[in-house]
Amino acid sequence: MENKPIGVFDSGIGGLTVLKEIMEVLPNEDIVYFGDTARVPYGPRSKETVTKYTFQCINFLLTKNIKAIVIACNTATARSLKLAQEKYDVPIIGVVEAGAKTAVNVTKNKRVGVIGTEGTINSKAYETEIGKIDSNINTIGKPCPLFVPIVEEGWADTDISYMAASRYLNDLKDKNIDALVLGCTHYPLLMNTISKVMGSSVTLVNPARETAKDLKNVLMKENLLRDQNDNPKYEYYVSDGPDKFKQIGENFLKKEIDNINLVEIHKY
Amino acid sequence: MENKPIGVFDSGIGGLTVLKEIMEVLPNEDIVYFGDTARVPYGPRSKETVTKYTFQCINFLLTKNIKAIVIACNTATARSLKLAQEKYDVPIIGVVEAGAKTAVNVTKNKRVGVIGTEGTINSKAYETEIGKIDSNINTIGKPCPLFVPIVEEGWADTDISYMAASRYLNDLKDKNIDALVLGCTHYPLLMNTISKVMGSSVTLVNPARETAKDLKNVLMKENLLRDQNDNPKYEYYVSDGPDKFKQIGENFLKKEIDNINLVEIHKY
Repeated sequence: MENKPIGVFDSGIGGLTVLKEIMEVLPNEDIVYFGDTARVPYGPRSKETVTKYTFQCINFLLTKNIKAIVIACNTATARSLKLAQEKYDVPIIGVVEAGAKTAVNVTKNKRVGVIGTEGTINSKAYETEIGKIDSNINTIGKPCPLFVPIVEEGWADTDISYMAASRYLNDLKDKNIDALVLGCTHYPLLMNTISKVMGSSVTLVNPARETAKDLKNVLMKENLLRDQNDNPKYEYYVSDGPDKFKQIGENFLKKEIDNINLVEIHKY
Repeated sequence: MENKPIGVFDSGIGGLTVLKEIMEVLPNEDIVYFGDTARVPYGPRSKETVTKYTFQCINFLLTKNIKAIVIACNTATARSLKLAQEKYDVPIIGVVEAGAKTAVNVTKNKRVGVIGTEGTINSKAYETEIGKIDSNINTIGKPCPLFVPIVEEGWADTDISYMAASRYLNDLKDKNIDALVLGCTHYPLLMNTISKVMGSSVTLVNPARETAKDLKNVLMKENLLRDQNDNPKYEYYVSDGPDKFKQIGENFLKKEIDNINLVEIHKY
């Protein structure tokens, strides 16, 4: 059982920043990654649509005989993690809880900012998770819809990303936060720009690393951790455009991506 | 037969700039508009996926008993118009041919630029159409992926849109073009910004108006033109997020949008 792969999915390529952390924290695990590139972005879509897509991604990964699933997408986690955990028996981990825990540990003045897609921010998922741990913390959300296309265009460190960040984040600066959660898996690539706009008094929280650690804990608890694996296998599946996935994705993963296959995801 | 409505579809809300022109040129026609907002954007998707989506949009409109179809989306026209015309009996009109004709009429130095999504530019659809009319014209394409999210964010006339336009268009300026086709239905909302960057020596071509005139000609030729209609009916269908469609769409259409219904488009 512990030799089975882990399944990881995202609406597209952003989840590769989470995959990267999982590879580092759990170097003995085989992993199957699915990116729903035919239906990206999930951010602006309704809860019903995101939940349907999330279930289809999980149904597909289950055909790959996986032992656990990571929803490496803030929108899908925010909209559908709980419904998915109710529906399926396999352990399912999202990215929101880990980010929320870290933000609570980091903030001193109990004022936390969260940036993400419209779907993530409107769901108030981070606010809810943070409130469960410490109800005295004030969480302020701000959607930043242009960040994803800016990153995918390769304009992460340009005057345009800086101006967009200034427009989006000036509100949050005025709110005197001291921690800011990067609530979208694309945003770690904008870390420098966001940090420049927010200044050194605000700590940026990247949920990807914490999610990988959470996954390790769950696998240990369930006796599913793989001890040894000299040659871990990574398989990639996408619902559209494998060439583009490879080209943009290698910048996210910081390593080569091979073994990319096409999936007709609407059939699952 | 001539009292049946016209069907118009787009990957989302951009097609409303075409609908606006059709309403003005053909004020007696009833119209059914479908926006595939659950699967927008079509621009970066593969030819196979765009064709599948296009056929589903047409299948849906056919259930509304329409007399003609306008593909008010440059990507879908560029990728799939010919396949659709082969497959279906109803008259189907795209936006590319009309834009190409106008560009040929406008250019004096026979150097035409085309901007659009990756899908439209990679298809070389405008280049092919323009080449059919005048093979001496040099057509230079440039994809501008960030323009659509900038427009949808409501940042059409800002420093950010100007900087993005400068980045994308400086290449084209160096190529000494004298006509520039706005090969994406969102781009008319960036007319001022694009015009400022390109300068007064370059004429901007908006295919929407010409498409509406083409449609009128086709309806006349096929005896499908409606002469009188005191109270034309406009019905709107979307595959996701009717509220957001209304909110952003009214800025495109410059009039109120009511009567918006949800469609499960993947079933068609």
